[in-house]
Amino acid sequence: MKNNITRLFVENQLDIDSSILLSHSQSHYLMNVMRKQIKDHIKVFNGKDGEWLSEIIHYNKKLGVEISLKEKLRKQENLPELWLIFTPIKQSRLHFILEKSAELGVTKMFPILTSRTVISNINLEKSKLVLVEAAEQSNRLDIPVIYNLQKLDTLISNWNPDNKIVLCNESETHIHIRNIIHKLDKDICTIMIGPEGGFTSQELDYLGKLPFLYSVSLGAQILRSETAAISSLACIQMMRK
Amino acid sequence: MKNNITRLFVENQLDIDSSILLSHSQSHYLMNVMRKQIKDHIKVFNGKDGEWLSEIIHYNKKLGVEISLKEKLRKQENLPELWLIFTPIKQSRLHFILEKSAELGVTKMFPILTSRTVISNINLEKSKLVLVEAAEQSNRLDIPVIYNLQKLDTLISNWNPDNKIVLCNESETHIHIRNIIHKLDKDICTIMIGPEGGFTSQELDYLGKLPFLYSVSLGAQILRSETAAISSLACIQMMRK
Repeated sequence: MKNNITRLFVENQLDIDSSILLSHSQSHYLMNVMRKQIKDHIKVFNGKDGEWLSEIIHYNKKLGVEISLKEKLRKQENLPELWLIFTPIKQSRLHFILEKSAELGVTKMFPILTSRTVISNINLEKSKLVLVEAAEQSNRLDIPVIYNLQKLDTLISNWNPDNKIVLCNESETHIHIRNIIHKLDKDICTIMIGPEGGFTSQELDYLGKLPFLYSVSLGAQILRSETAAISSLACIQMMRK
Repeated sequence: MKNNITRLFVENQLDIDSSILLSHSQSHYLMNVMRKQIKDHIKVFNGKDGEWLSEIIHYNKKLGVEISLKEKLRKQENLPELWLIFTPIKQSRLHFILEKSAELGVTKMFPILTSRTVISNINLEKSKLVLVEAAEQSNRLDIPVIYNLQKLDTLISNWNPDNKIVLCNESETHIHIRNIIHKLDKDICTIMIGPEGGFTSQELDYLGKLPFLYSVSLGAQILRSETAAISSLACIQMMRK
């Protein structure tokens, strides 16, 4: 069902009859963009206490919007763990990876630096805003966590080997992703996507030797990084649920 | 394998030792953007005669780049038919649907008008450019065909009932897309995606009665139109190949 009531992520604890003062940007969004009125309803969630129906009870330009919590609509439910390891790419396509990852139920995101990573930084604050907005829109009850940028080998050397990594590898010709989905632990699964220029052969050798990593093909077409990420995430989610 | 030789789509017939004068925009792209030189190689395809290795033999600012065909690299192979029915959405997200559809092997695209379609036109010329560029990048040997915008009921009244439509329907709760994939004819399959505001209940009633249409869910999350399109296309392709 199309969800027409505005949903907002808040940091506050959520409890019956408590009231919350929203941030300036959220207040502006509600009153000036969405043109809400006093007594209008919105939904809020904080990633811990489920989803609540609330009512706008005050609005003051300086202080912002105050809401009162009315009714718990949904219990907190955690999504099955689905992690994504990716490399920074240019802004609009990165935005796309973040937004679609949130829509497709990714729970943790690990940006990494590889030899061919062209863009060597990531704006975590902006990235978090994109993730929050996408989570609000897509009806999830939590926000994906995004970690600091780190080197590929730092990430791998600290990796828990129980957590299997599915490496989407353009040079893989034998094993298609559909052939390994049944092997993945249902509790946790991680997709790894390379940079636009691909991993170097040294990196692929290094990754290929890891006992907790499956190298897979996504088919004959050459996919851009963000297409590979979204396609593989969608496939994993489809087979899981 | 990463494909590093520039690929271009041309309208000309392709045959051994024939030479082709490229368009001004292609010539500009090769010489000024990609900084190619005389004797450099590029690949060309026309959607009919496979893929050819060619060499740049002349360049003249007024006339453009002339190439000579050297060797047929791949035979023409047609992708399995995969069609997409979608509604126009705002520019950047539409661009995304077009680009990702081409990458994911869509062969025909049908933009439609529904009651809640907000954007009531589509720039076919621009759309074709996006499709060509994405096909060049993704290693396909053909270009997806995009049809004129038409009304939902016009499209449906002319539909061949042998061609099954998979309607990605937010209000569907019983049948998940994974449960009907095995029922689809391998020769042809069509995904249908609604506008941002969803189909109206009248439209869903009308569509629900069609014997050649399966209404399916993509899961609990609310997906944007373009995410629904890409996810469902990726899932169909994954199960097919």
